[in-house]
Amino acid sequence: MEDKFARRMSSVHRSFIREILKVTADPSIISFAGGLPNPECFPYEAISEAARRALADKPVNALQYSTTEGDPELRAWIAERYFTRMGLRLEPDDILITTGSQQCVDLVAKVFLDKGDAVVLERPAYLGAIQSFSVFEPTFRTIPLHTDGPDLAALESLLDQGPAKLFYAVPNFQNPSGMSYSLEKRQAVAELCLRRDLLFVEDDPYGELRFKGEHLPSVYTFTKGRSILMGSFSKIATPGFRIGWIVASGGVRDALIRVKQASDLHTPSLTQRIMIELLKHYDMDAHIAMIRERYGKQSRVMVDAIQRHFPEGVTISDPEGGMFLWVTLPEGYSSMKLIDKAVERKVAFVPGKPFYVEEGRGENTLRLNFSNASEEMIEEGVSRLGSALREFLGQ
Amino acid sequence: MEDKFARRMSSVHRSFIREILKVTADPSIISFAGGLPNPECFPYEAISEAARRALADKPVNALQYSTTEGDPELRAWIAERYFTRMGLRLEPDDILITTGSQQCVDLVAKVFLDKGDAVVLERPAYLGAIQSFSVFEPTFRTIPLHTDGPDLAALESLLDQGPAKLFYAVPNFQNPSGMSYSLEKRQAVAELCLRRDLLFVEDDPYGELRFKGEHLPSVYTFTKGRSILMGSFSKIATPGFRIGWIVASGGVRDALIRVKQASDLHTPSLTQRIMIELLKHYDMDAHIAMIRERYGKQSRVMVDAIQRHFPEGVTISDPEGGMFLWVTLPEGYSSMKLIDKAVERKVAFVPGKPFYVEEGRGENTLRLNFSNASEEMIEEGVSRLGSALREFLGQ
Repeated sequence: MEDKFARRMSSVHRSFIREILKVTADPSIISFAGGLPNPECFPYEAISEAARRALADKPVNALQYSTTEGDPELRAWIAERYFTRMGLRLEPDDILITTGSQQCVDLVAKVFLDKGDAVVLERPAYLGAIQSFSVFEPTFRTIPLHTDGPDLAALESLLDQGPAKLFYAVPNFQNPSGMSYSLEKRQAVAELCLRRDLLFVEDDPYGELRFKGEHLPSVYTFTKGRSILMGSFSKIATPGFRIGWIVASGGVRDALIRVKQASDLHTPSLTQRIMIELLKHYDMDAHIAMIRERYGKQSRVMVDAIQRHFPEGVTISDPEGGMFLWVTLPEGYSSMKLIDKAVERKVAFVPGKPFYVEEGRGENTLRLNFSNASEEMIEEGVSRLGSALREFLGQ
Repeated sequence: MEDKFARRMSSVHRSFIREILKVTADPSIISFAGGLPNPECFPYEAISEAARRALADKPVNALQYSTTEGDPELRAWIAERYFTRMGLRLEPDDILITTGSQQCVDLVAKVFLDKGDAVVLERPAYLGAIQSFSVFEPTFRTIPLHTDGPDLAALESLLDQGPAKLFYAVPNFQNPSGMSYSLEKRQAVAELCLRRDLLFVEDDPYGELRFKGEHLPSVYTFTKGRSILMGSFSKIATPGFRIGWIVASGGVRDALIRVKQASDLHTPSLTQRIMIELLKHYDMDAHIAMIRERYGKQSRVMVDAIQRHFPEGVTISDPEGGMFLWVTLPEGYSSMKLIDKAVERKVAFVPGKPFYVEEGRGENTLRLNFSNASEEMIEEGVSRLGSALREFLGQ
């Protein structure tokens, strides 16, 4: 039956990260390869209690088919939170519930992408988005991501060469690089996208996880609603719910609802009702503050260990939030080769190459995850990686 | 931003059924329009208890990211059930868990359909599948559905005119027509599809809901695994879980996993774990037998009421299972016009027209749902519809 596959299947691959994760199933390996939140931060008892409440008194709305738009109470909570967090005034009807924020990318691609349309990505870019977009056969074009955000001169010049449909970006604590846009870059990218008629698609799964510096408003707040904003409960509650959302209104929202209906009818009513009960009866602010403090501590422990264990010439990012730290080796060294030496020493990471759509880029970069490891594991794992690096660099 | 929509959006519409359901929000209207299972059959207490079990003892696997393939215990249960129900020997690895069986169609379309590929549908066809396929811009070709299954001479002649990629069908108690394939037709359609190299895509959400006649094996059992089979818990447990599955192996399964990963990473771990606890500790056979008996009774009550209340010249199907009954008006009468008269009399149904992809077909047909109404409501609703029909037909 493989002879019947659509042409797109030649560019839709299994995630390289998932292949690495198989290696790290070995419990003797310390893994910084995953992108998982720390399960010690999950509010187990509160979720169990929320499920009890959601399923008490024969609740038809938790078990029957439901609306494609998503539960009104859940949409109201999300809209309200945008106001308290960043002064953004939204109606519950501006929110569309999705099956995780991965589905947001699939829905946006369905609504906007014809085969061959140009999609602008950050360099490096989130691998899950590259995969979702690839199904719709766009051409990818990329612009460098600096420590304060994207290179806008590169974006201007890229648009001068030809039109692009949309610009997909993760302005807060990006996966994989951990980079965040400065306030100035947020305003400037919004201005540029409006002026050049480029649809800005803002993925924000990590926005609440800032442990350093000041919270900054979404780019969406500067585009007067003429962009798309995505969010998720995966990093602030738990990923197992698979609940994300898209902020959109008018004709765009209507189009997203139509393709959502064609994709899975609606996100499970059961998980939505349990989430609502959790949000109503649990102190989410205190919970998120706890996650922030913990990830901040783990990030500092990792940076500190790297400064002691890594050899000269290896540079690292200084994340202000999120779950990732970005490492750059000296030019000419490939992290795809380093990974074998690291696994021999029982430590794993993700090489940077898969986050670049162009061949030959990012060979000397790699991603470290600090959210899902204890401080002791971080110290020991960084020490092992330091030995591997010294051998690899011949120091 | 609407000026940026992909071309496909011109053929992706909101479900007409969802528009009718808005009318029926009026509680004074008796609605046979929906396609909902009866919420009185939901195992509320058992699900509540299953959630308690799934969330006891800090279960990381219910709340963390999980595999795209789906929970191994859930896949094992599904594989085992195919053996006990129809002697089909499957491995857990032949099952891919999806976010409802609606997602199965989306994933199959992603793997197999290039723009312009021909998809063969039954006439009438399931509206949700028409919507999902439409996103991938195929051409639709249809063959008549008789009371014992599809017109295979029409299928042969259609294939003689040009190739088709796949044939999507619902052989058990089809939505909307309620029709089922005879054993002979199942064997014949399998033989034809293998001989003509046409991929058979078998959607089976209602297979367990047979209340009359003998259970028949899936077409899949006659294709030696060279077809695709889809299933769902929506009609045997509850739809709010949004758990369906695809039976596929080898390269096809691998391709489905890749596009599933790009679509929503994985189906919620939380609902999968609750479903497993339900399946382990609840008597599903007794539960399904109860649903079958109830829907069988409701179907008989509806058929009986129709025989007393409907005027001459209106014919109906004789469903052996599922949730729907199909009504045909005399030639030249349009159910799209009847619906207004029916709603005036506080009764609703779905006109047949949206289930036909070709213009001008099915005008004189309509779908009645009998699963989600009490016997009293069925009697009263059919009586109201009978009055509307008599006036409409001038009798």
